Amino acid sequence: MVGNTFGYAFKLTSYGESHGKAVGCIIDGCPSNLELCEKDIQKELDRRKPGGRLASKRKEEDKAIILSGVFNGRTLGTPISIIVENKDVDSKPYEHIKHVFRPGHADYTYYAKYGMRDWRGGGRASARETVARVAAGAIAKKILDKFGIKIVGYTKEIGGISCDVSGLSVDEIYEKAEKSVVRCPDEEKSALMEEKILEVMKEKDSVGGIVEVIVKNVPAGIGEPVFLKLDAYLAFAIMGIPAVKGVEIGAGFKVAKMRGSENNDPIVVGDNKIAFETNNAGGVLGGISNGDDIVVRAAIKPTPSISKPQRTVSVDLKEEIIEIKGRHDPCIVPRAVPVVEAMVALVIVDLMMLQGLIPKSLI
Amino acid sequence: MVGNTFGYAFKLTSYGESHGKAVGCIIDGCPSNLELCEKDIQKELDRRKPGGRLASKRKEEDKAIILSGVFNGRTLGTPISIIVENKDVDSKPYEHIKHVFRPGHADYTYYAKYGMRDWRGGGRASARETVARVAAGAIAKKILDKFGIKIVGYTKEIGGISCDVSGLSVDEIYEKAEKSVVRCPDEEKSALMEEKILEVMKEKDSVGGIVEVIVKNVPAGIGEPVFLKLDAYLAFAIMGIPAVKGVEIGAGFKVAKMRGSENNDPIVVGDNKIAFETNNAGGVLGGISNGDDIVVRAAIKPTPSISKPQRTVSVDLKEEIIEIKGRHDPCIVPRAVPVVEAMVALVIVDLMMLQGLIPKSLI
Amino acid sequence: MVGNTFGYAFKLTSYGESHGKAVGCIIDGCPSNLELCEKDIQKELDRRKPGGRLASKRKEEDKAIILSGVFNGRTLGTPISIIVENKDVDSKPYEHIKHVFRPGHADYTYYAKYGMRDWRGGGRASARETVARVAAGAIAKKILDKFGIKIVGYTKEIGGISCDVSGLSVDEIYEKAEKSVVRCPDEEKSALMEEKILEVMKEKDSVGGIVEVIVKNVPAGIGEPVFLKLDAYLAFAIMGIPAVKGVEIGAGFKVAKMRGSENNDPIVVGDNKIAFETNNAGGVLGGISNGDDIVVRAAIKPTPSISKPQRTVSVDLKEEIIEIKGRHDPCIVPRAVPVVEAMVALVIVDLMMLQGLIPKSLI
Amino acid sequence: MVGNTFGYAFKLTSYGESHGKAVGCIIDGCPSNLELCEKDIQKELDRRKPGGRLASKRKEEDKAIILSGVFNGRTLGTPISIIVENKDVDSKPYEHIKHVFRPGHADYTYYAKYGMRDWRGGGRASARETVARVAAGAIAKKILDKFGIKIVGYTKEIGGISCDVSGLSVDEIYEKAEKSVVRCPDEEKSALMEEKILEVMKEKDSVGGIVEVIVKNVPAGIGEPVFLKLDAYLAFAIMGIPAVKGVEIGAGFKVAKMRGSENNDPIVVGDNKIAFETNNAGGVLGGISNGDDIVVRAAIKPTPSISKPQRTVSVDLKEEIIEIKGRHDPCIVPRAVPVVEAMVALVIVDLMMLQGLIPKSLI
Repeated sequence: MVGNTFGYAFKLTSYGESHGKAVGCIIDGCPSNLELCEKDIQKELDRRKPGGRLASKRKEEDKAIILSGVFNGRTLGTPISIIVENKDVDSKPYEHIKHVFRPGHADYTYYAKYGMRDWRGGGRASARETVARVAAGAIAKKILDKFGIKIVGYTKEIGGISCDVSGLSVDEIYEKAEKSVVRCPDEEKSALMEEKILEVMKEKDSVGGIVEVIVKNVPAGIGEPVFLKLDAYLAFAIMGIPAVKGVEIGAGFKVAKMRGSENNDPIVVGDNKIAFETNNAGGVLGGISNGDDIVVRAAIKPTPSISKPQRTVSVDLKEEIIEIKGRHDPCIVPRAVPVVEAMVALVIVDLMMLQGLIPKSLI
Repeated sequence: MVGNTFGYAFKLTSYGESHGKAVGCIIDGCPSNLELCEKDIQKELDRRKPGGRLASKRKEEDKAIILSGVFNGRTLGTPISIIVENKDVDSKPYEHIKHVFRPGHADYTYYAKYGMRDWRGGGRASARETVARVAAGAIAKKILDKFGIKIVGYTKEIGGISCDVSGLSVDEIYEKAEKSVVRCPDEEKSALMEEKILEVMKEKDSVGGIVEVIVKNVPAGIGEPVFLKLDAYLAFAIMGIPAVKGVEIGAGFKVAKMRGSENNDPIVVGDNKIAFETNNAGGVLGGISNGDDIVVRAAIKPTPSISKPQRTVSVDLKEEIIEIKGRHDPCIVPRAVPVVEAMVALVIVDLMMLQGLIPKSLI
Repeated sequence: MVGNTFGYAFKLTSYGESHGKAVGCIIDGCPSNLELCEKDIQKELDRRKPGGRLASKRKEEDKAIILSGVFNGRTLGTPISIIVENKDVDSKPYEHIKHVFRPGHADYTYYAKYGMRDWRGGGRASARETVARVAAGAIAKKILDKFGIKIVGYTKEIGGISCDVSGLSVDEIYEKAEKSVVRCPDEEKSALMEEKILEVMKEKDSVGGIVEVIVKNVPAGIGEPVFLKLDAYLAFAIMGIPAVKGVEIGAGFKVAKMRGSENNDPIVVGDNKIAFETNNAGGVLGGISNGDDIVVRAAIKPTPSISKPQRTVSVDLKEEIIEIKGRHDPCIVPRAVPVVEAMVALVIVDLMMLQGLIPKSLI
Repeated sequence: MVGNTFGYAFKLTSYGESHGKAVGCIIDGCPSNLELCEKDIQKELDRRKPGGRLASKRKEEDKAIILSGVFNGRTLGTPISIIVENKDVDSKPYEHIKHVFRPGHADYTYYAKYGMRDWRGGGRASARETVARVAAGAIAKKILDKFGIKIVGYTKEIGGISCDVSGLSVDEIYEKAEKSVVRCPDEEKSALMEEKILEVMKEKDSVGGIVEVIVKNVPAGIGEPVFLKLDAYLAFAIMGIPAVKGVEIGAGFKVAKMRGSENNDPIVVGDNKIAFETNNAGGVLGGISNGDDIVVRAAIKPTPSISKPQRTVSVDLKEEIIEIKGRHDPCIVPRAVPVVEAMVALVIVDLMMLQGLIPKSLI
């Protein structure tokens, strides 16, 4: 009914406007006896922060403080409240959009829904909201790590430049991607992507791309058919990230052109258990994990905030030309990577809990 | 937690195995005083039924009986229980797969999850489960119809043959698609698609495709950010349909190659209200409807049941060659159309209720 | 949001009007591999059926049919749909209340809520709805039985005549209560209660009472603070049963007159584990089970349907005198016992699942 | 599943341990355009604070800060995050109970559930948690006030001394109760109650009582049968408050001794609409409001923290004698009043929203 809670067993409830006092969240359902400290969360928040010459100039420290749920370095099993104060807030550049709806943004739709809106920095619709997702995802990842499950994301494509990671282990993908300013593990493609971004920046424009996330070692059997299927839940989690316009799993949209004989992954015996020769399924059959890698991709639209002049309309229905000011990324794809990872982590933890695979107390 | 309920305000709870006594559902949250009879439901179920030379030979009458929630031809506001008995059940062809997992099917994953499975006709994982979705969707459509909202789906692509509906009204799309054996509104492409299906049938194979659904006249303001966004909810609803491997909205995966200046839909004044010159957004901004057409697409994989020999493994981990028997569609795309429509209808009704746009009593 | 689903991990969704085609339910979340057949459910439904000279003359067979979720005598882990057809339906005696609201009934409130109502036999507000609760409770009890948990209810009080079960084991309470026409394990008090009921029957009146339910062997640690506490959840489950006006746990309302030193149960070592010398807590501390017996009581109001003349008002606001016809129990307390037991069973199973104490597959 | 969220349409998610950094909550689903400031919340928090010679010596300022969801003095429709820092924290008196379970407290049950516990001041099980309930309730009351709905609670009974408010308006009850140190509107009884409390204090003991809450002007038609009934929901909300052991509605447990002809409230025409001559129903029929006053009562147990010596057991199963130190109320009843009111307010707002009676935007 109300939309700011995510999850069933491992629940994230999020709050905060871009230029309000703070953003943050409550995580309810975390098992007790998990070692947890603020550094665990900070590490992931730092990956999400803007950085380098390709990113927004807003310089938030994004310091996570744990307010509850942890005692003597371990989770209590009670709600974990995390707060991140908004510090580098500058609402002035937004004054001029108080009465104008920015194209590609949620200005008009929030206004239509709520009869008002917080115009400062996008308010609740700002991607700053994803701080809460990443913080909660950091805890989810810590839990998954205890079960040997790894979640690695990277930039698959930017502005038509695409990379291929076949042959790389997820550890290699992670290391290489984290070294790249665009989070692309292929050095050459990374350079081309960077070039592309600099090019659109010069033209006061922005550009989109694709994020891929791979999950290793998820046990077979998670997902709750027929509605809370693993793939459906991933699609829900990822499509709800700001700027995502498409989600696909395994072979994804390519299946439309495939035959059954090509698309069906032959079942084989691998390591004394069921395995699959190929992974067109992306690790999901009938909405339930099959033990193979889970592979999902998200299409990220170009940042709607561009300083090129655009046609729009004001609250009182007058047509106007707008040139967006403020501090924005010309390409949000690299920063979206840890956000997609976080949402995937939340889904996997939640479904593992629902399947009874994670004990209520981790000792 | 448990996966057989869909929706928050308008809730569908579904049950039934392919070869069990019945499939059916309970719809909870339907407003009172809606005119409703079994014919309303039958009409949509009939669209979902196999038919013609391209489809499964299972001949279910699919007769919907309303057990509760309707009195004197009007809904009571209490739960509506609908039952569809399974009549043309023939479990013999499945005997040989009792101990073998079919590639591309959920046989192994159900086994991994539940420690057992109903091997007759796919059990709960059979697409027969979608009967409940379509029945509930029929009621959702009846409600939406009172608000002038139309939901029309069609086959956009099969096996690489794609059609374009630009210039057609949704009424035209509907009429033309319903006349086509593959549910494609473009006559010429329809013939090519049919040909393609007959070709793969001969090769004991199957083929995939894309379904597109368009929704007209959804008011601006529905969708519950930041998690139960309209687009996220649609992705959840559609990705959970059997065989769907990708979902996109508006420009979808194309945004990855676009610039902000191309992708942002200019805002204009249309008919004394906010309108958009293009619809790359697919009717959704910030997870909230913007009043424009909602446009979603689903990638449907080729039917996994093919009679070509395939490599697989038995329950006791022996490698085997399998040739699927039973009654199957070589291309599920045309029959998926009313299912995708139904899921979209459920999402729209649910979010409109959450937004307070549908009264609890319809008189 | 919508009210016909009960439970989080073990979910009951219920449907049906008193004089509609059927009443029934879907149970979602039942573990797989539980032995289950229709007899298991029938046994409990038979306890709920009217019987003897003290009860309603409606003679429903109340035959439960399982439509899904069971295969080869074991649960599949998929939704279990149960249907009970309404057969002995006689709506004629209700014709005269079409336009009049019966005092003590939900006639007016349903009308106020839904703008219409099914006046035949009370429609959805009839206690016939509890068939679904008892059917689901039967499955819950079967699960609990595997963990040594026993749930026993009995009539504690009718019309001021109260009994004391101290000294009796729950097995003794059960056996004695089931032999009593008023479900009271104390033979002498049972006779007095019966007499009281016959007395009020003669006066065309009805009488209320108290049901007590005791649960043995619940492990310490179930209950989800701070809102889904064990006691809160029990209160929710029981207060929602038709005719219940009060719920108490352990010492209940007596605590209002007690001192801390009396009410606190001394903690002792019993059988090499934590035990309590007294049980004023009723087995719950801080909303979590403490391993002691759970003891709850429900106050049941006198059946509102009485044939004595009563003052009321018609739909068009005219004052009238009404004499209720139809088939009614002069005292609903004995038949309420299995219903309260069922709701308690649903709560315990649900919380045990949430605590990870019941595996997803029971083999 | 996880227990720290309350509500369906108007959702409270709560966090915080007694001696952690803060307690607080997120309210999701509040309509937009409600005038709201910190004072609105502070007013109710101040009613809950300990005060006078009968109460705990812990002196928390309980200053509420709104972190999100409010812009220019009005709610945005986005989540409202409220934080109350814990300042007067003194964990030393609890050091000696690190390894001992206090009788009547949740020490043992938290330990049994989570495998560990925060022993400082009761941790999450402390009544300090109710700060979040009262803060959220303050917002609920502000909404209800716009619809003319008043919620007034008072101390009905302490240690066997009971008062009668018949003849008083709710405004009079409120004014008189707020002037009384025990929150009892009857001056004479208030003095006796105070005396009783001072007496038990001297004996190092504590005492219980009863809180009654009356709600005026709730429209007929709220409540979601058959499970989320108004009375069931109230019972859930109130029984989950720390120390509550019983809940009753209208005539409550008295119905057990009543006849139908006494208990049924005659329906009459009042003010051109349906009215009731008596209110044994407590404003609820069939789980739906009937337009009459809602009247609920909660039995509050004596504070378990007493300095009298008590028998108990340590973590390593050794029997011990304990004398509780720390700062505690000898009678929690007066401070429970605003907490019960808050929970009732949350239920009423939630059900009114579910019934579509509160617009999403309040302008």
